[in-house]
Amino acid sequence: MKNIVAVVLAGGEGKRFWPFSMYKSMVPFLGKPFLIHNLEMLKKVGLTQAIVVMPQNEGALSKIRVEGMDIKIATQSDTKGMGDAVLSAKKFIGTSSCLIMNATDVVEKTLYASIKDAMKNDEMFVVGKKVTEYFDVGYFKLEKDRVVAIIEKPGKGNEPSNLINLVFHYFPDPSVFFDAIAKTKSDKDNVYEQALSKILTQVTARVIPYDGYWQPLKYPWHVLDIMDYFLSKKCISHQGRNVEIKSNVVIEGAVYIEDNVRIFENTKIVGPCYIGRNTIIGNNNIIRHSHIGSGCVTGFNTDITRSYIGDNCWFHSNYIGDSVLEDNVSLGAGSVLANLRLDEGDIYSLVKGEKMNTKRNKLGTIIGRDVRIGVNTSIMPGVKIGKHSFICAGMIVDKDVPDDSFCVAESKYFLKHNTHIESSSRDAFKKRL
Amino acid sequence: MKNIVAVVLAGGEGKRFWPFSMYKSMVPFLGKPFLIHNLEMLKKVGLTQAIVVMPQNEGALSKIRVEGMDIKIATQSDTKGMGDAVLSAKKFIGTSSCLIMNATDVVEKTLYASIKDAMKNDEMFVVGKKVTEYFDVGYFKLEKDRVVAIIEKPGKGNEPSNLINLVFHYFPDPSVFFDAIAKTKSDKDNVYEQALSKILTQVTARVIPYDGYWQPLKYPWHVLDIMDYFLSKKCISHQGRNVEIKSNVVIEGAVYIEDNVRIFENTKIVGPCYIGRNTIIGNNNIIRHSHIGSGCVTGFNTDITRSYIGDNCWFHSNYIGDSVLEDNVSLGAGSVLANLRLDEGDIYSLVKGEKMNTKRNKLGTIIGRDVRIGVNTSIMPGVKIGKHSFICAGMIVDKDVPDDSFCVAESKYFLKHNTHIESSSRDAFKKRL
Amino acid sequence: MKNIVAVVLAGGEGKRFWPFSMYKSMVPFLGKPFLIHNLEMLKKVGLTQAIVVMPQNEGALSKIRVEGMDIKIATQSDTKGMGDAVLSAKKFIGTSSCLIMNATDVVEKTLYASIKDAMKNDEMFVVGKKVTEYFDVGYFKLEKDRVVAIIEKPGKGNEPSNLINLVFHYFPDPSVFFDAIAKTKSDKDNVYEQALSKILTQVTARVIPYDGYWQPLKYPWHVLDIMDYFLSKKCISHQGRNVEIKSNVVIEGAVYIEDNVRIFENTKIVGPCYIGRNTIIGNNNIIRHSHIGSGCVTGFNTDITRSYIGDNCWFHSNYIGDSVLEDNVSLGAGSVLANLRLDEGDIYSLVKGEKMNTKRNKLGTIIGRDVRIGVNTSIMPGVKIGKHSFICAGMIVDKDVPDDSFCVAESKYFLKHNTHIESSSRDAFKKRL
Repeated sequence: MKNIVAVVLAGGEGKRFWPFSMYKSMVPFLGKPFLIHNLEMLKKVGLTQAIVVMPQNEGALSKIRVEGMDIKIATQSDTKGMGDAVLSAKKFIGTSSCLIMNATDVVEKTLYASIKDAMKNDEMFVVGKKVTEYFDVGYFKLEKDRVVAIIEKPGKGNEPSNLINLVFHYFPDPSVFFDAIAKTKSDKDNVYEQALSKILTQVTARVIPYDGYWQPLKYPWHVLDIMDYFLSKKCISHQGRNVEIKSNVVIEGAVYIEDNVRIFENTKIVGPCYIGRNTIIGNNNIIRHSHIGSGCVTGFNTDITRSYIGDNCWFHSNYIGDSVLEDNVSLGAGSVLANLRLDEGDIYSLVKGEKMNTKRNKLGTIIGRDVRIGVNTSIMPGVKIGKHSFICAGMIVDKDVPDDSFCVAESKYFLKHNTHIESSSRDAFKKRL
Repeated sequence: MKNIVAVVLAGGEGKRFWPFSMYKSMVPFLGKPFLIHNLEMLKKVGLTQAIVVMPQNEGALSKIRVEGMDIKIATQSDTKGMGDAVLSAKKFIGTSSCLIMNATDVVEKTLYASIKDAMKNDEMFVVGKKVTEYFDVGYFKLEKDRVVAIIEKPGKGNEPSNLINLVFHYFPDPSVFFDAIAKTKSDKDNVYEQALSKILTQVTARVIPYDGYWQPLKYPWHVLDIMDYFLSKKCISHQGRNVEIKSNVVIEGAVYIEDNVRIFENTKIVGPCYIGRNTIIGNNNIIRHSHIGSGCVTGFNTDITRSYIGDNCWFHSNYIGDSVLEDNVSLGAGSVLANLRLDEGDIYSLVKGEKMNTKRNKLGTIIGRDVRIGVNTSIMPGVKIGKHSFICAGMIVDKDVPDDSFCVAESKYFLKHNTHIESSSRDAFKKRL
Repeated sequence: MKNIVAVVLAGGEGKRFWPFSMYKSMVPFLGKPFLIHNLEMLKKVGLTQAIVVMPQNEGALSKIRVEGMDIKIATQSDTKGMGDAVLSAKKFIGTSSCLIMNATDVVEKTLYASIKDAMKNDEMFVVGKKVTEYFDVGYFKLEKDRVVAIIEKPGKGNEPSNLINLVFHYFPDPSVFFDAIAKTKSDKDNVYEQALSKILTQVTARVIPYDGYWQPLKYPWHVLDIMDYFLSKKCISHQGRNVEIKSNVVIEGAVYIEDNVRIFENTKIVGPCYIGRNTIIGNNNIIRHSHIGSGCVTGFNTDITRSYIGDNCWFHSNYIGDSVLEDNVSLGAGSVLANLRLDEGDIYSLVKGEKMNTKRNKLGTIIGRDVRIGVNTSIMPGVKIGKHSFICAGMIVDKDVPDDSFCVAESKYFLKHNTHIESSSRDAFKKRL
């Protein structure tokens, strides 16, 4: 069997992922970056060499380690596209075969098994995800189980098949593909796809049809989808070292508790949940179906439901529903991240200036790193808050807040002389207690 | 003994009962409409035939059933008054004797016992409620225990007795009364009273004096009074089928729990309370002296105190004090229905455009059906919110909101560049935890 | 041994102590006025006669009792300064020796022991507090352990020693000092200090150096410092008569619980804490490191942390952090006394019109007596609220509120016709619970 190298594309345009400043591939789930989870899947199917293409990032590099795997980093500017990304990896590949994939797609392990089988044949293949509704992406045109072309955005009703192109592309001899990329000139960000189309007219490629779960991490609310996947598939009941659980704490379902976590009285945790190292879950909390990073303090009387919380976040009597917070965010007492429209309709969010349907009827706030929110503030569903921002007390925030903002309510109030007050006895009230 | 038919007046002007859209007689207590409770009282004193006069309402009719009682519905426009109501019932009465009463008054069972005794004599009677302060209603003028006239609104100091006219009027031969009504012409809504006065000059009527509890359901906050009566008099400890009560739930006093109710951890319920079918009481709640309908979800950390909650209401970390909610109302996290003025004085409420003293120093909000209230909203004592309305997040609502309103705060805030932020270590705070 | 009388100066300018209306010396700690604690310290070192100089105040006088001590009150206008205060006491002293001290300084008992020893010698002495940074007060100039002068505000770098002048001044024959005061003419409030300086040129005085804890009660947030001292030094675990503690209450550390206190379910109290007579701690509270007066009701779901609460205060689902409340204050549900700036910097407070650094990065609100605060109101760190004031619901209060204020937010909102509402089924939500 030939030597096979995985090329894992971990760059990619980050603007749609705002207000996160972290790379999508570095978002941690269950204690390690998303990318590592995918590298581990590759290792399980026998690949021990990987080239990760990502923008230069010293901080990230040190975290990209998988026991028993030889991982090289090919750096690339994050604006240059997939074609350029693959070429950045070329120098590490030599004469090996090559499996190209995205770092930030989640698929089921059955697909990895199919890929493992397919790699035994010395033959190019691609993966086609079966779809039942129209997506505006590339569809495979097939002759039997052979792919003869990719039709980009064919338009509804003109789909050449029900299989769309997932980036799991296997090349026994990738040099042909590298040449095709190098020769492709395009001012659009589709050099990779054009080169692949060209190859398919020359090389026989098999399609692996795939009917399972697939979720790319594209918009920041997708963090919730990826979280759901990891929590439901990979989260087990676990209690790390030096965990302290006070009296009358109820833990239901699979809850993974890392080392040094402390959980205070009268709190309920409903799994699947992940609680990172050194995190303190305060008294009288409810934590449901959520992923909480390390070094957090949830404070008294907080409700965290179906949310992703980064590291070092602090709360106090908050409701955090269906929300995504990067690191080092704190909320003052009584602040609420609302997650449901009054009309219970789909929630929209601005992406690069355009209103986009998130296809969710429950979605809270998405908050970048280093944000401070005052007390009794209300943030409307789907709002995003840029990093390094302060949101003052008592605000009603109904639109996105840019990075580095100081945001304060116009609060007017009137003072007049108080003529109402008198010494009142409240003994009568006490009797009714 | 003659055949006796009860005529139960369940129509009546609904404007003072706004924002409820339900008929007063159909407001459910302890799982059945108010009217049914009164019909059951009649059955207990031996009456097995009743004519309920109410506006046409298909939905309501199916609910008016009492085992072993023959109930007929006489329909009437709700603006036509009591005289017309009685005439609507005439055709069902034939030659029977007749007890006329209101559907939406609460009196004690001792009065029903007195009525039962009195009906054994074939003699007209009325009921006089003993009062110790002046009310602007009709007073009986007596000679011994015989009523010789009704003096309407005599003015303080001019009361002919200390007995006011309750509508429990018994006619051995009601045809005389029907004739009197038919002959009375009035453009005021007092045909019934005028006809009764006229009769009293011709027929000898005894008065049954009554010194017990009496409460009509006139204004929507009276729902709280009626609720108090039913909770304190008729509520017993009961647990229906398929009730689930989690750990560390404290239930004190008489709490009636219907089928399929679920009560979550660390919640306390202080009776008397009624919890309707399929309702979910969330974690860390306190529920005191309240009546909660079916299909509700109280959510995490809610306090419901001395309140009446209809069916299918949803809460989440709310304080609901001394409030009345019709069906299908929901409140966002952190919203509060305030129930006490800062000066602890009596709470006023608008009724048909006029400010009215509710004679309560604790009264929260009254909310019609199908209302959605956002997060962190504050509603001032005595405010009423019309049906089908949305109240957006963070509002301070200090006046009544009409039906079908969309209500949004004028929220201005300023954005400027944040120069404050720096990576701060909160380890020192953690040490103080 | 000569007879020794303590002169305890309990007057002093109260403006810096606003919004408290109580005298500083009368603020209760652990169930008795601050002054009494200091008188008891004097008694422990053998002094059984004390003259308390304070403004005329009938209410206060009755509380100034120490078993076995002869206490006289010398009244004085609170604007006349320390020199005048001492002269007011003169008539009660006769030929006794005299120890002059402030009523509202806290020092450790080791200093009282040193004073006891020093009083055995028939010799004047003063106490010098060792400091390591510059304070703008009076410093002692020494020759060996003799004080030869007091240098007022010498300026940084010009300190004659590292000992500043604490008011613990002992005179074997105080008549000399009285004469000096009487002869000193000054239009500044420093007659006492000038007279003391003059004396030191004539009389040999020893200095007692003191290296322990010292805290005067000068600004209202100092109540928190004094509270910390008493809680950490003098608070023990205690449960009075007729205390009722419901199920699942956790009490950790030293918590002093007075008679008739009731503590409800699911509450945690983390000592050191003091809970005054007849106080009710509600369900699902957390109380940490706080001092709560008598007759209070904390309500449901309240968090009181590092705070001083006077008598007869009422709460309900509040967060009260690092705050100081005089008597008869109440907060509506959801109101928060914020205690941390978003930038986590030092908190400033206005004192006599000038912004002053409190040197605290955690400080909440300071509230005078008889104040009512509505629901969902947010008060910013370091804000002070004058007595007899009402703060209406939903406000964001970011500056001091004068005494006798009625304070209401300008709240605008828009009503329009609601076109959103429809009968929605929430069964799908219920399934996710």
